Amino acid sequence: MPRFALKIEYDGGPFAGWQAQAELPSVQGAVERALAALDPGFRAGARIAAAGRTDAGVHATGQVAHADLTRDWDPFRLSEALNWHLKPAPVAVLAAARVGDDFHARFSAQGRCYLFRLLSRRAPATHDRGRVWQVVHPLDVEAMRQGAAHLVGRHDFTTFRSTMCQAASPVKTLDRIAIEEIAVPHGAEYRFHLSARSFLHNQVRSIVGTLERVGAGAWAPGRVRDALDARDRAACGPVCPPQGLYLVGVDYPADPFSDAASSRE
Amino acid sequence: MPRFALKIEYDGGPFAGWQAQAELPSVQGAVERALAALDPGFRAGARIAAAGRTDAGVHATGQVAHADLTRDWDPFRLSEALNWHLKPAPVAVLAAARVGDDFHARFSAQGRCYLFRLLSRRAPATHDRGRVWQVVHPLDVEAMRQGAAHLVGRHDFTTFRSTMCQAASPVKTLDRIAIEEIAVPHGAEYRFHLSARSFLHNQVRSIVGTLERVGAGAWAPGRVRDALDARDRAACGPVCPPQGLYLVGVDYPADPFSDAASSRE
Repeated sequence: MPRFALKIEYDGGPFAGWQAQAELPSVQGAVERALAALDPGFRAGARIAAAGRTDAGVHATGQVAHADLTRDWDPFRLSEALNWHLKPAPVAVLAAARVGDDFHARFSAQGRCYLFRLLSRRAPATHDRGRVWQVVHPLDVEAMRQGAAHLVGRHDFTTFRSTMCQAASPVKTLDRIAIEEIAVPHGAEYRFHLSARSFLHNQVRSIVGTLERVGAGAWAPGRVRDALDARDRAACGPVCPPQGLYLVGVDYPADPFSDAASSRE
Repeated sequence: MPRFALKIEYDGGPFAGWQAQAELPSVQGAVERALAALDPGFRAGARIAAAGRTDAGVHATGQVAHADLTRDWDPFRLSEALNWHLKPAPVAVLAAARVGDDFHARFSAQGRCYLFRLLSRRAPATHDRGRVWQVVHPLDVEAMRQGAAHLVGRHDFTTFRSTMCQAASPVKTLDRIAIEEIAVPHGAEYRFHLSARSFLHNQVRSIVGTLERVGAGAWAPGRVRDALDARDRAACGPVCPPQGLYLVGVDYPADPFSDAASSRE
């Protein structure tokens, strides 16, 4: 059966997360229904695997999944057909690519990039409602950057993972955490860019929630180091809500979508 | 009665436009209801005036209106109270300012700036659904810029205004039209920035809809000049839909909100 990689964008708002769950709307379920509608051989309860199992309310602009289909689709036609069947769900296939049987969206991935959008403004968000986490107080970006610097590198992230996390080890290497400050009328938006080979459950939201406390002045930047060293979930700052989080990209040894631009008409 | 200027942001999607209309949801109506809820003296059918009477579905990030209230509110408290009463409508007061009785949001304005967001991408918009106009074909930004150059300056814009336009004269001076090209995964977004003292009804949407035809290759750039010279509504390209249009700013001889930043706690 030919295997296809799919690059997927979605608004996580209406979904209980990526992963299919009985009775609950999931992004995985929406994509699987679209696949089944166009490839009858896919029907028999087949599942697709994704690079990141995003939580309820978390968005993606570059999720990657793979599926084994029965027809050897032209990748461009496959993405067009999937987008037709996905309507009106806020899920879109940005690109499709034929990949080898050894490609696995989750296990072949060498890196994940997440974006977290934090809006600091008195007036409630209108256009970006459900797409940012908003606080009404000002934030000190330099303090947040100082706090963040303690987290880069290989560490035991027990403090910054959910107690429900199923990863075998809490040791991960955080390759990058950069905080961009963007002026917006009567406020500021902070964009946190995080990259790692893989992340623990709730790791990004635990980190951003803690750094927000630093930005607000409630925590000194050095307390982030103390929290990390404690290796104790209770030492973490508040976990921030999901609606500011985006899975923006997944890295593979060879980009399966490198030819996808040429599949555009 | 003390007069206040309000800088207002809104998602135009759920509204039949800025202007209050019986039985239809309007941004003006939402703001007037919030004003009446907090300032009982405002109740007796008082109306507010705005710089731009945006159409159904058109957004704003910098609309300006003025209102005469009975209490001499602290501007910061006024904006906070209005935002509380505006919930859950996607309308937010970014700033409030005490202004003189000679300030009129519409008649004192010396300039308006609009943004139009046009997404060129095969895959349907998810996060930006309702916030951009999407086409699925590629666009030539240089051709659009060449076409746009014909429109800058003082012209009879009969071709580019609605037949319903109530302006006394079709002659307007378009000060600026700049087109920004932003790469997005598997597509591009084009941001049209237009500035003028004032605009005719549907002028921005008529211009962008025409320039899109140029970008798509259906019109040569010089045909924009011919269309303008024709002074005939029938010579216009298709008027594009409202959801990509944003009123982003209004200029006054003195910015009424110049102190508003300091009203932040």
